[in-house]
Amino acid sequence: MRSTIWSMQAQFAAAKIGKYATSESGDTLEMVERPSGGLSFVLVDGQRSGKSAKAISNIVARKAISLLADGVRDGAVARAASDYLYTHRAGKVMATLNIISVDLLSQTLVIVRNNHAPVILIQENEIQEIDDPVEPVGIRKAIRPSIHEYPLNEGLAAIVYTDGLMYAGERIGQRMDIKRCVQDLLRVGLPDPQEWSSFLLNRAVELDEGRPGDDISVLVLCILPDDKNDVRYLYARMPLK
Amino acid sequence: MRSTIWSMQAQFAAAKIGKYATSESGDTLEMVERPSGGLSFVLVDGQRSGKSAKAISNIVARKAISLLADGVRDGAVARAASDYLYTHRAGKVMATLNIISVDLLSQTLVIVRNNHAPVILIQENEIQEIDDPVEPVGIRKAIRPSIHEYPLNEGLAAIVYTDGLMYAGERIGQRMDIKRCVQDLLRVGLPDPQEWSSFLLNRAVELDEGRPGDDISVLVLCILPDDKNDVRYLYARMPLK
Repeated sequence: MRSTIWSMQAQFAAAKIGKYATSESGDTLEMVERPSGGLSFVLVDGQRSGKSAKAISNIVARKAISLLADGVRDGAVARAASDYLYTHRAGKVMATLNIISVDLLSQTLVIVRNNHAPVILIQENEIQEIDDPVEPVGIRKAIRPSIHEYPLNEGLAAIVYTDGLMYAGERIGQRMDIKRCVQDLLRVGLPDPQEWSSFLLNRAVELDEGRPGDDISVLVLCILPDDKNDVRYLYARMPLK
Repeated sequence: MRSTIWSMQAQFAAAKIGKYATSESGDTLEMVERPSGGLSFVLVDGQRSGKSAKAISNIVARKAISLLADGVRDGAVARAASDYLYTHRAGKVMATLNIISVDLLSQTLVIVRNNHAPVILIQENEIQEIDDPVEPVGIRKAIRPSIHEYPLNEGLAAIVYTDGLMYAGERIGQRMDIKRCVQDLLRVGLPDPQEWSSFLLNRAVELDEGRPGDDISVLVLCILPDDKNDVRYLYARMPLK
């Protein structure tokens, strides 16, 4: 490998499943490279489920990634995506939106929320919930996102999800305690995005007795120590009907 | 997990490294969900290396993913991306372009090439090189892509790469025999995209004595038997400076 010394690495992993007995998930997750360096993830949960939800989440996500690819700043992207949905569907449908970016220009993690579901943040082994009140996008003009920014440091991690994860287990009167799950995971060691995202999704599906009551998506991002490897990797897996 | 029986699954994995001693790779790889179902990958190698190559590959990839996200068919996307680069840079720069899609509507794998590097295709354990003559995008008006389409069947696989992989080892007079490497890998078992893409990239970096002579990107896609899991997974890893 090259002799360049990288000081850190970023890892991202997502797991996603559709509501039971629907043909497709109404959540859309997209990834795009930032023209000034870094990666952005856009997670959108369209109102309702199945095909109509997918159509809504798709237009919001598409608009967001297209603007991010043009170098538009994250907060402006959320505002634009909201106005676009509002105009396109006359304010009659809503969607939740999260944009999570590792921005190499500012050397920060940027978290944009228009989603009532909190984002879980880990800094120096401390778990915190980002849950300031926000509105979903598309329902009225001039919706504002909540924006948080953190310097990229080892051990920084974020867990972002759609509300299907929060409400998992509600049917059996045993709602998932996500923060508690993350505390347990953190006790075992450094965040492992692939393990953590799978664990959280599997736990939710278990609580929903194998039949998810809603679309569920979980994205885990973390900044880990350098392992002297400057290869970028990407992996994706999808079931085919 | 759900009781739905999925008949197959698609897996995609990519590995990517920049030319030795350049600040960033001039190759761009982007992934986008197809609005009618499925996933598309766009791989672009910009002329030259470093920042100027990255700027070129970025505008081509950005245009391509934005059109794919709008539901434009793959061949038309390649033509549009070529004309766009031609117009934008007055025909003075070129880029190679590959679009690889798993299209759930047509139930096919679609391979679009404007890249002199062949694509390796595996069907029923037979390895074949797709290497019909094509031009890169951006150098003149009305560039046409080569388009191949294959029904989605178990064991179907494609290996797509930028020419950095082909020319690896040239410096020491020992060019990489990619087809031979794939034959060896296939003898071990079913395609494993993560293992295969890492193996091919690592082999190339070895032949370049740890100092890649060019940007190298490898994408491996395959259709595998159903494993009764209808979760979608995504994973990405990037080094941080």
